[in-house]
Amino acid sequence: MKVVRYKKELPISYAHGATLCIEAMKTRPELVSKIFAHSSYNDGTGFKQITALCIEHGISIERNDRVFNVLSPKENCYVIAEFNKFECPIEQNVPHVVLVAPSNAGNLGTIIRTMVGFNYLDIAIIRPAVDIFDPKVIRASMGAFFHVRFSYFNSFEDYAKSYKNRNHYPFMLNAPNQLDSVTAQKPFSLIFGNEASGLPESFMTIGTPVVIPCSSAVDSLSLPIATSIALYHFNRE
Amino acid sequence: MKVVRYKKELPISYAHGATLCIEAMKTRPELVSKIFAHSSYNDGTGFKQITALCIEHGISIERNDRVFNVLSPKENCYVIAEFNKFECPIEQNVPHVVLVAPSNAGNLGTIIRTMVGFNYLDIAIIRPAVDIFDPKVIRASMGAFFHVRFSYFNSFEDYAKSYKNRNHYPFMLNAPNQLDSVTAQKPFSLIFGNEASGLPESFMTIGTPVVIPCSSAVDSLSLPIATSIALYHFNRE
Repeated sequence: MKVVRYKKELPISYAHGATLCIEAMKTRPELVSKIFAHSSYNDGTGFKQITALCIEHGISIERNDRVFNVLSPKENCYVIAEFNKFECPIEQNVPHVVLVAPSNAGNLGTIIRTMVGFNYLDIAIIRPAVDIFDPKVIRASMGAFFHVRFSYFNSFEDYAKSYKNRNHYPFMLNAPNQLDSVTAQKPFSLIFGNEASGLPESFMTIGTPVVIPCSSAVDSLSLPIATSIALYHFNRE
Repeated sequence: MKVVRYKKELPISYAHGATLCIEAMKTRPELVSKIFAHSSYNDGTGFKQITALCIEHGISIERNDRVFNVLSPKENCYVIAEFNKFECPIEQNVPHVVLVAPSNAGNLGTIIRTMVGFNYLDIAIIRPAVDIFDPKVIRASMGAFFHVRFSYFNSFEDYAKSYKNRNHYPFMLNAPNQLDSVTAQKPFSLIFGNEASGLPESFMTIGTPVVIPCSSAVDSLSLPIATSIALYHFNRE
């Protein structure tokens, strides 16, 4: 089969590098269809662990250097896992992170990494939005991607209809409640807007809008930073 | 004068885009030597503000489309400020962020953005380290770069000799003190290691080592995330 560059329409995606390959095979071995290994990749702890996991789960290793030119032309990458896309819908009655129109793959991956770090496992994504299976998301998540549940929705209303009776905390620069003073009532949804434009004004009438107080010398914190601080704050309670 | 791609050795650097140009001219007008504007950049609020600031501070606008091919070949960028590098050493008796061997320009810029957001204005950088004047740092800082004081040191010992009688809080994965339980005594230094390797073990004997508790499902938080959570935590106290 010819290997092509990742596209949203494909039924498969890729995890680049030894750390992600190992995480994929440990967490979701049934999804990993193949491991591509560069001909120069023959040794080291990572290689041994990958080989052992492939044997354990009956996954084949394909030696194919051209694959690396197609899938990671600019990177120092010697091993790639091909895996089947999957569904893993978010649960009721657990904390949710809700991202409205996130546009940057690296940011989404970083947010997922922090979520898993603080034991938040459910992410709702409101379209238009970046593709969670983009290898850049998986890379930036440092493997945490394989631990989360996720669902896409066409609108926030669709999300709120499917997941009822929750406490919503939209994060907005002009919100009246400072993060320090807010105690989250479970089950809660922490809601963040697009990197450039934030949440639409209409979210000011939803739940308890929250602001992370910030000097006027910066317009705002970056999306992954704001999200991480909120996750840390509510996790400590 | 021929414009060349940014290099560490040059006495000048560049701020890309209208937001950064405006921030540079508002904060440090004496350093801005020139504004490059693309021939198609003739209108809009940003353009008007830039023109007004140039007149106010006697800064010339050069129309030069080739400059954009050299300085920002891949970006949608229509205005660039050229500015002279400067020294702005960190102060005594104020909180410091200390980065030991930071390697990523985007991370350094994001950290500076969060620092300024939480009113930390002093950053010490221990070599080997990324160049703080790299346009990628300035871009990621979203202009916050022009608000901070910074000093480079060849070793942590050099830093500690120049800035004495401070309380040190090195952030390490195996530290005995959880962030929640730590109250920082002023003046304090929050110390973070390299993106990939963290701080050397020797920092376990320096001041009060701190850990941000984190699920074992992730190896660690990313450097800008860990730094931002620490800044938020100590800022709230």
